[in-house]
Amino acid sequence: MIDTDIKLIKIKEEILSDNTELGDQIRAQMNSSKTYFINLMASPGAGKTSLLINTIKRLKNEYRIGVIEGDIESMVDSIKIKDEGVTAVQIQTGGACHLDSPMIQQALNTLDTGSFDLLFVENIGNLVCPAEFDIGETKKVMILSIPEGHDKVLKYPLMFSVSDILIVNKIDYLKTSDFDLGFLKETVCKLNPKIKIFETSCKTGKGLDDWCSWLREEIETFKGKVI
Amino acid sequence: MIDTDIKLIKIKEEILSDNTELGDQIRAQMNSSKTYFINLMASPGAGKTSLLINTIKRLKNEYRIGVIEGDIESMVDSIKIKDEGVTAVQIQTGGACHLDSPMIQQALNTLDTGSFDLLFVENIGNLVCPAEFDIGETKKVMILSIPEGHDKVLKYPLMFSVSDILIVNKIDYLKTSDFDLGFLKETVCKLNPKIKIFETSCKTGKGLDDWCSWLREEIETFKGKVI
Repeated sequence: MIDTDIKLIKIKEEILSDNTELGDQIRAQMNSSKTYFINLMASPGAGKTSLLINTIKRLKNEYRIGVIEGDIESMVDSIKIKDEGVTAVQIQTGGACHLDSPMIQQALNTLDTGSFDLLFVENIGNLVCPAEFDIGETKKVMILSIPEGHDKVLKYPLMFSVSDILIVNKIDYLKTSDFDLGFLKETVCKLNPKIKIFETSCKTGKGLDDWCSWLREEIETFKGKVI
Repeated sequence: MIDTDIKLIKIKEEILSDNTELGDQIRAQMNSSKTYFINLMASPGAGKTSLLINTIKRLKNEYRIGVIEGDIESMVDSIKIKDEGVTAVQIQTGGACHLDSPMIQQALNTLDTGSFDLLFVENIGNLVCPAEFDIGETKKVMILSIPEGHDKVLKYPLMFSVSDILIVNKIDYLKTSDFDLGFLKETVCKLNPKIKIFETSCKTGKGLDDWCSWLREEIETFKGKVI
């Protein structure tokens, strides 16, 4: 991949990340209240809200679910979530392109975490900065949708390397696209061999039961483990 | 849209933007060298590189074209661009989620701008931060692709309000999607009545000639105007 004819400029920039300590405190709080806490990240339009709604529909009769919605502006997503009958807190960042621990702490201050078995954060639509910020989550889940293309691991490696779960969404687009699923899996597994991959379509429902079965098992194991 | 049952937390964050002065200097430099300078912005996977390649194919026999490629990591896009026989400079931001004027100035220092009629910057795949940073461009062009959904104006208003051109790409997905093109146009035109909209598909070629005809006219007018 080295091409000496192309000029290359490397720019180093320090990323502020003093939020790790607060992230650890949040994780301890979630462990104490036995709340399984998911940080859901993806590009704009990859299907974060649709996945949440479909997950809530399948699990809301078994678990007490809450959602912290992160957006630059607007409340459209939290209104959709609330329509499913679960608690939603909206964070408006007013320009910031990711959520960090202090923002999450502010949202948690408005909630009794003990009243949730499962709490989601829908992060800002961005494959870059959200990957840098620990928000005290139990697991980091990312979505890549088929129309985004199979080369994204090479271009946004941090997101793929820090995520515990990759949900390949809009899998129904596979038949009308040149997306190479084998290439995606090969590049992501090389970078992050422990990542678990689900293939879903919120339009056809494909793969959603598998994802929810896995989540159910995770929650039960978590509740059993946490003291 | 106001729902008093949803808790709302507003977070203010100052965005560093001392780069405007340098942006103006870059714009003056481009005017002086008669280089039409486009800042191309979009989410990951919306089709920035594909649009560039298709544009280069159509215009490279008429104009001297260069591309400054911005990426977090990797050189995959600049290699694709170079394969089209035009000059490419790769900026690797090493984590930063947007390009700013000092980065562009570094890239320009490696080029003789007088040897380009048309210079593109392919910004980092991100609908948020690139909108905040003037890089001295002649025009800001954004892409939204059909699979991303028609609600993006509400969620990423700054990008839509600062852009001069909106290219609605992957228009071939329209027939298999519930994307409401009327709603998109209505919301974007309300926010930014001066925005010019093109509908394209880099897969079928639809709309690309229109986009290139417009660009050709722009370049000619620009060259005529600039002293």
